[in-house]
Amino acid sequence: MTISVGIFGASGYTGGELVRLLACHPSVRIAFVTSERHAGRPLSSVFPHLASLPELICQPLEVSRATACDVAFCALPHLASMDVVPLLLEQGIRVVDLSADFRLRDGEVYQAWYGAAHKAPALLDEAVYGLPELGSRSAIRQARLVANPGCYPTSVLLALAPLLKEGAIELETLVIDSKSGVSGAGRSATQGSLFAEVAEGFRAYKTVGHRHTPEIEQELSRLAGIGMRVRFSPHLIPQSRGILTTCYARPRKTLTPGEWREMLYRFYQDEPFVHVLPLGEYPATNHVRGSNQCHLAVALDERTGWLMVVSVLDNLVKGAAGQAVQNMNILLDLGESAGLEQLPLFP
Amino acid sequence: MTISVGIFGASGYTGGELVRLLACHPSVRIAFVTSERHAGRPLSSVFPHLASLPELICQPLEVSRATACDVAFCALPHLASMDVVPLLLEQGIRVVDLSADFRLRDGEVYQAWYGAAHKAPALLDEAVYGLPELGSRSAIRQARLVANPGCYPTSVLLALAPLLKEGAIELETLVIDSKSGVSGAGRSATQGSLFAEVAEGFRAYKTVGHRHTPEIEQELSRLAGIGMRVRFSPHLIPQSRGILTTCYARPRKTLTPGEWREMLYRFYQDEPFVHVLPLGEYPATNHVRGSNQCHLAVALDERTGWLMVVSVLDNLVKGAAGQAVQNMNILLDLGESAGLEQLPLFP
Amino acid sequence: MTISVGIFGASGYTGGELVRLLACHPSVRIAFVTSERHAGRPLSSVFPHLASLPELICQPLEVSRATACDVAFCALPHLASMDVVPLLLEQGIRVVDLSADFRLRDGEVYQAWYGAAHKAPALLDEAVYGLPELGSRSAIRQARLVANPGCYPTSVLLALAPLLKEGAIELETLVIDSKSGVSGAGRSATQGSLFAEVAEGFRAYKTVGHRHTPEIEQELSRLAGIGMRVRFSPHLIPQSRGILTTCYARPRKTLTPGEWREMLYRFYQDEPFVHVLPLGEYPATNHVRGSNQCHLAVALDERTGWLMVVSVLDNLVKGAAGQAVQNMNILLDLGESAGLEQLPLFP
Amino acid sequence: MTISVGIFGASGYTGGELVRLLACHPSVRIAFVTSERHAGRPLSSVFPHLASLPELICQPLEVSRATACDVAFCALPHLASMDVVPLLLEQGIRVVDLSADFRLRDGEVYQAWYGAAHKAPALLDEAVYGLPELGSRSAIRQARLVANPGCYPTSVLLALAPLLKEGAIELETLVIDSKSGVSGAGRSATQGSLFAEVAEGFRAYKTVGHRHTPEIEQELSRLAGIGMRVRFSPHLIPQSRGILTTCYARPRKTLTPGEWREMLYRFYQDEPFVHVLPLGEYPATNHVRGSNQCHLAVALDERTGWLMVVSVLDNLVKGAAGQAVQNMNILLDLGESAGLEQLPLFP
Repeated sequence: MTISVGIFGASGYTGGELVRLLACHPSVRIAFVTSERHAGRPLSSVFPHLASLPELICQPLEVSRATACDVAFCALPHLASMDVVPLLLEQGIRVVDLSADFRLRDGEVYQAWYGAAHKAPALLDEAVYGLPELGSRSAIRQARLVANPGCYPTSVLLALAPLLKEGAIELETLVIDSKSGVSGAGRSATQGSLFAEVAEGFRAYKTVGHRHTPEIEQELSRLAGIGMRVRFSPHLIPQSRGILTTCYARPRKTLTPGEWREMLYRFYQDEPFVHVLPLGEYPATNHVRGSNQCHLAVALDERTGWLMVVSVLDNLVKGAAGQAVQNMNILLDLGESAGLEQLPLFP
Repeated sequence: MTISVGIFGASGYTGGELVRLLACHPSVRIAFVTSERHAGRPLSSVFPHLASLPELICQPLEVSRATACDVAFCALPHLASMDVVPLLLEQGIRVVDLSADFRLRDGEVYQAWYGAAHKAPALLDEAVYGLPELGSRSAIRQARLVANPGCYPTSVLLALAPLLKEGAIELETLVIDSKSGVSGAGRSATQGSLFAEVAEGFRAYKTVGHRHTPEIEQELSRLAGIGMRVRFSPHLIPQSRGILTTCYARPRKTLTPGEWREMLYRFYQDEPFVHVLPLGEYPATNHVRGSNQCHLAVALDERTGWLMVVSVLDNLVKGAAGQAVQNMNILLDLGESAGLEQLPLFP
Repeated sequence: MTISVGIFGASGYTGGELVRLLACHPSVRIAFVTSERHAGRPLSSVFPHLASLPELICQPLEVSRATACDVAFCALPHLASMDVVPLLLEQGIRVVDLSADFRLRDGEVYQAWYGAAHKAPALLDEAVYGLPELGSRSAIRQARLVANPGCYPTSVLLALAPLLKEGAIELETLVIDSKSGVSGAGRSATQGSLFAEVAEGFRAYKTVGHRHTPEIEQELSRLAGIGMRVRFSPHLIPQSRGILTTCYARPRKTLTPGEWREMLYRFYQDEPFVHVLPLGEYPATNHVRGSNQCHLAVALDERTGWLMVVSVLDNLVKGAAGQAVQNMNILLDLGESAGLEQLPLFP
Repeated sequence: MTISVGIFGASGYTGGELVRLLACHPSVRIAFVTSERHAGRPLSSVFPHLASLPELICQPLEVSRATACDVAFCALPHLASMDVVPLLLEQGIRVVDLSADFRLRDGEVYQAWYGAAHKAPALLDEAVYGLPELGSRSAIRQARLVANPGCYPTSVLLALAPLLKEGAIELETLVIDSKSGVSGAGRSATQGSLFAEVAEGFRAYKTVGHRHTPEIEQELSRLAGIGMRVRFSPHLIPQSRGILTTCYARPRKTLTPGEWREMLYRFYQDEPFVHVLPLGEYPATNHVRGSNQCHLAVALDERTGWLMVVSVLDNLVKGAAGQAVQNMNILLDLGESAGLEQLPLFP
């Protein structure tokens, strides 16, 4: 069986990554790709690394062409996505949306953080938050619309889920310090993303108030069974891909380092994409680059009693396009790892 | 049918890259990997990006264990490889050797450049130089021993082969200026490869006398049908992977830019891994990174009449492990692209 | 007046940086530089960026030669420094020591973290911890031995001193997340510092138990007037220079963001090397690179009530050689900024 | 004596670099800086690394304000500069122009390469091409208008001048392969200069037809005493600063490697900013970064008889702002090295 997929918004980094993964997926055919800006041009002129796919021509964004596909990936910017997704659903197309538009349950929260009223609030309840490792597989399987999680939230939630499930930390002490490569800022030309500005220039940004905060809070609150607010601060790494998140909290249990590691290990032991490192090994973003993997490490500071969990993932794969493919695989029962078995590229 | 392969010297960058590619090859099972230095340890502790392959344990280098495999990849350093390869052949194992030990036909040339007498000179004639795009496929298919080309020579030969075949350039004007990422220097700890030495530090090195020179000369001479000496200068790029080679020569034919491009295009039109770019597009190493592809571009400087050809490839893939897998595929008739269909990782 | 200085251990990054700064210092003459490993060779062959200083020849480490200098900078590794410093003091030479050997007051703490008994415990009390902005100028001026602070501690202490002086935060909630460029690991060839390992490979390391922890605790405790233990986690940035430290704590005061900024601003308003950024601006390591400056930013997360302070500095300048020159300037009353007025190199 | 200088176009990388150097120049006061785009804002908000210069406020571009200065630096884009420079000269202000507008002697050549008729052709003859090491010091001293050379031309001319003066190479065999860091493309936001596009992405660009070609040809022709056309191909290095140029030619003389090195050494032996490396040492861009130095190396390929010269410099210093300050120093007899004595920043 071959599935036909369409990709809306193929000229950004996330769109290019969807093409990279889907073009090698054993059960998938890319029916079309859209790019308003580059309509009519071969995608390989926009992304020269796709030179071996000369047949992909950028189409204008016309929802009606989606009838040619079984599943649509929507890699449009937030605000744009909520215009398109309802029309796709009306045509009976199942959608994996990679924007932020359908991740938040509460339309008012959306408006507060994204500065615009939501145009399809009825879909907010229906959309399934697509983080399979956190227990939503059966809901994803039946979904019409999967809201693909943000890159930072994926890194935070995978790190903290086992602890919250067990009620193992004091929530009010939790500090989340995240670091991301610059591809997370997208492919638009902005001075702040220039090589000469970023190289040798590790920096903090949006120290408070990053838009991924409410998404993290919504999902952590669900896991903890109690409303939470979190301290979340992102930083910019002089590298293209990768997120590393360091979480700090005071534990509510007295366990040995090995027992803490065991808590995480058990939670993820059947997961193909999450690896819990041995005690004393340190995660690095180039250990997962280009793959759908997430590496986790836990450490107990025995002098102060605090616990740390560190996660790494590739923001464009497990943090975006790879997770979207994983969600499609679940949606269509194609085998959750299909097309995602590539190993990380190191060095 | 599943082929069993063994990898001698798995703890260097080339060895790690062989594992990355072969672990996802549809027809291959990795029977064993060796590393003297790390014998007994899981390969994933040497290469944390291979965390999903916990079953691979580094073995000591014992040739007798090769009986478990159909093909052996030898990723040992030069000088070491010529000790091991003859023993493998004696056991009836076919070998793809990634070192420099069997690339040169002439044992005296080998000794002059590598500083030691060759220990298996009888094999120098037998070994097949494994650059499939240059016409050696039938020889590779029947070979016991394939000498996998060097990274710089591959980038030079793919750029120049079409011109030499046509006698299209004045050989005595040829200048070859190559630039390589630092993974080409291997994984050994040397001060000159430290991040703080390399970053922001593009440099020339071995301006004259790089050991890949005689290999380039041997193969260019064969293509040109006349003995040649070349000016070849390598440089070090502050990046991990990738080679870009710029070739300059005065042409012996008066052609338009389009006709020059057509000459290269026709030469490679049926090749799955070589792309000749449209006129006016510029190759970049991150357009091929992680893939077995080579991109070529040609330009005619109409003011001076000189011709330029630029090639890019990933030194660890088309310049080493990927080409080795391609050679194995030919050797065993597995389909030349099997296991090599991954698209480049960009950005 | 020209001061003669000697530099012990000139072939490491810190030593090279001392030469860079001192060679342009208006009141200083470099009398000698030592390097056991490179004795007899020009320093410019060890550090080609010093090609314009051909007269500096590496000397063997002989303490007796220090009689030629007014002040000695000791940039030897820890454990080695405590052998040399007492001999220098005996000769009446004033010393700025850049190792960790004289930073801790308590010999037992030293032994616990550095794995060896201290050989000159009597000097631990005498040595002045040389962080001028934190109030030790008069002690420095009269010191025989200045212990130059570590790079991480400098970044942490400058960020937190104003808050601790005011008793403004809940100490038990404090979390310190630091990130450093790879030059902090020194110039020795180690696999973990290779370009191909570090590039695109942001990582955590020594998540607990980094040796700068007791130094941070000692000085924070002094500032707070109460014994403290801290959660301090370092990370490695794929860049050569620069440290960024993010500190999180729950405040004990209810102030506006502007009032918090004002608290830091007032503390440092007369300091030439510390800049408190306007609210909403974010510090970056390439805004201070190559200079002796430290930039600080403060932010209040009004949703959760927590406070953040971020500091950036160049680990080789304000975190090492620059601060050592600043201490020498105070010691000899040369004008605290002499030789340190270079502006940061950007980009 | 304090000289007042003005900087037109201070918000680009070249402008920022002029400020960095001039703010520490012992004989200079920066009277004003202009930036149309940021007029009214402190320059430190445009360039946070200049936080210690809060008094510099961006002014609108008004030529009349130049009356406040003795010398004006014009760091405007080409085409814009030729509008401003004549007005400055009319006011009796001496000008160092860093654009391309006054470098070419022939207005028709200018028009052919820059696509617009020159608006001040009478000044083309008067302008002095400001490359002091090539013999123009006395002309510079008396100039009203100094045309500051381009970055690539400086790297090429310093490498080749000694050889051309001696008639030592066959001009028709000359090949010039240059590599530049990305700051040369300026601070404007363009997709091609984004970190994620440039990192790991060494590339060729403008393989033929780069606008620095006629400037190189004009000056080489002058040195050689005969009209020349050159093969000049630039490449983009994934780093911020630095140019490395490799020149290849067949010699017309039979000399030993040591004699070739001696030829270059003698030419530059009294020059403070040009270092000819010992035979066998290789230049690297991070050996000169941030300084006004140029390092040169020569190698003879004894197997083929060809000669190579390699030069490195910092494109923003010796390739732009540093050379401009050097020209100002000559113009005003301030001591040619004044304000340019900073050593390179390594690592």
